[in-house]
Amino acid sequence: MPDRAIGVFDSGVGGLTVLKEIQRLLPGEDLLYLGDTARVPYGTKSPATVRRYAMEAAAFLTRRRVKMLVVACNTASSVALADLENQYKLPVIGVIEPGAKRAVSVTRSGRIGVIGTEGTIKSGAYTVAIKRLAPDADVVSIACPLFVPLVEEGWLNHPVTHLTARAYLDNLRHLGIDTLVLGCTHYPLLKPVLQEVLGPEVILIDSAEETAFTVAAMLGHCHRLRPSGEICTAQFFVTDVPERFQRVGSEFLGCPLATVEQVALD
Amino acid sequence: MPDRAIGVFDSGVGGLTVLKEIQRLLPGEDLLYLGDTARVPYGTKSPATVRRYAMEAAAFLTRRRVKMLVVACNTASSVALADLENQYKLPVIGVIEPGAKRAVSVTRSGRIGVIGTEGTIKSGAYTVAIKRLAPDADVVSIACPLFVPLVEEGWLNHPVTHLTARAYLDNLRHLGIDTLVLGCTHYPLLKPVLQEVLGPEVILIDSAEETAFTVAAMLGHCHRLRPSGEICTAQFFVTDVPERFQRVGSEFLGCPLATVEQVALD
Repeated sequence: MPDRAIGVFDSGVGGLTVLKEIQRLLPGEDLLYLGDTARVPYGTKSPATVRRYAMEAAAFLTRRRVKMLVVACNTASSVALADLENQYKLPVIGVIEPGAKRAVSVTRSGRIGVIGTEGTIKSGAYTVAIKRLAPDADVVSIACPLFVPLVEEGWLNHPVTHLTARAYLDNLRHLGIDTLVLGCTHYPLLKPVLQEVLGPEVILIDSAEETAFTVAAMLGHCHRLRPSGEICTAQFFVTDVPERFQRVGSEFLGCPLATVEQVALD
Repeated sequence: MPDRAIGVFDSGVGGLTVLKEIQRLLPGEDLLYLGDTARVPYGTKSPATVRRYAMEAAAFLTRRRVKMLVVACNTASSVALADLENQYKLPVIGVIEPGAKRAVSVTRSGRIGVIGTEGTIKSGAYTVAIKRLAPDADVVSIACPLFVPLVEEGWLNHPVTHLTARAYLDNLRHLGIDTLVLGCTHYPLLKPVLQEVLGPEVILIDSAEETAFTVAAMLGHCHRLRPSGEICTAQFFVTDVPERFQRVGSEFLGCPLATVEQVALD
């Protein structure tokens, strides 16, 4: 079992931020990454549809005998985690709990902002997760549907992105949050803009790193960590043709992507 | 055969601008509209994937015995029209030819701009269609991926939309086009912003009206026009849950949508 790969999936390229942190923390682990690029985005779709897509993605990865499932997509983590846990005997890790945990550990005022897709924010998953850890926390959440297209367009530091961030976040700024959860795997690429709009005193929480810690802890707990010293690999699968994923994905990973294979889920 | 409905499909709500014009011109025709909302958008996906989705949408409508297929989506019209025509014996109408025809008929300088999704612009379908009608025309085309999310966000007259339009279109303005084809069914909702950025002398071409003329002409030509005087209906089908389609769609149609039914294509 320890020799098996960790399965990671997302609607597209965003989950590569999570994969990158897992690779950094656990360089000896093999990884399988699936991006459902033929049906991206998940954030504007209904919980029922996202749940169906997540189950199909998980089925694909478990057929390849992974030892763990990492849902590297906030929207899917928000609405499909319980179904995945019920369906599979494997450990299933989402990005919501780790992000919530980190936010609660760094906030001083207890006033926490959460931004994400329409699906993630509507689900209320972050608010529930944060309140479970810190019942007195004051959580303000806002959907920011234009951030994903802006990142995909590559306008990471464009005047349009600054203006959009001000339109979405001015309210959060006035409410005096001291911590902001980036509840979408695309958003870490907007950190400089978000920090400028919110001011240097607000701490930005990116679930990726904390999720990697959770993966390591869970693998250790169930004795599935791979003995170190071996050569690790990452294999990439997508549901649309690979070109766009390779291009945008290399920006997320900060290096060129290895071979990407197109597969069918539906 | 004349009593059968006209089948119209799009990736989402955008094609309702075409449906509206068909209803206005041919109030006696029954219409079936399919929006593939579980897989929207098509504009960022590969030609192969869009072709597969278009074939599935057409199969759904032809099983309901429509007398004609209207591809009310620029991306699908750009890459899938020939396949649909080969597969089905029905008349198949896309939105590219009608838009190109109108542009050629109104331009004085012969310098025509085209804006659309990444998929539509990359296909070069408008350039080919315009050049076929007017070989000397000078066609400049630009992909504007952020316009669809901006319309979906409802920011039709927002400062962010103005700034985005200037970023995309400044180049077109300097090139001195006198006609701009709105090569995406979402874009007509941005007409006021686009007109302000380009100036009043540039004519904006919306394929919807011309497509409706083509539908009427084709039905007349093959003796499939429904005898007038009867009550017409429009039935709506979507692949994700109907709520969002009903909400955003009513803005496109300018009136509430009748019952919307969820169906599976894949």
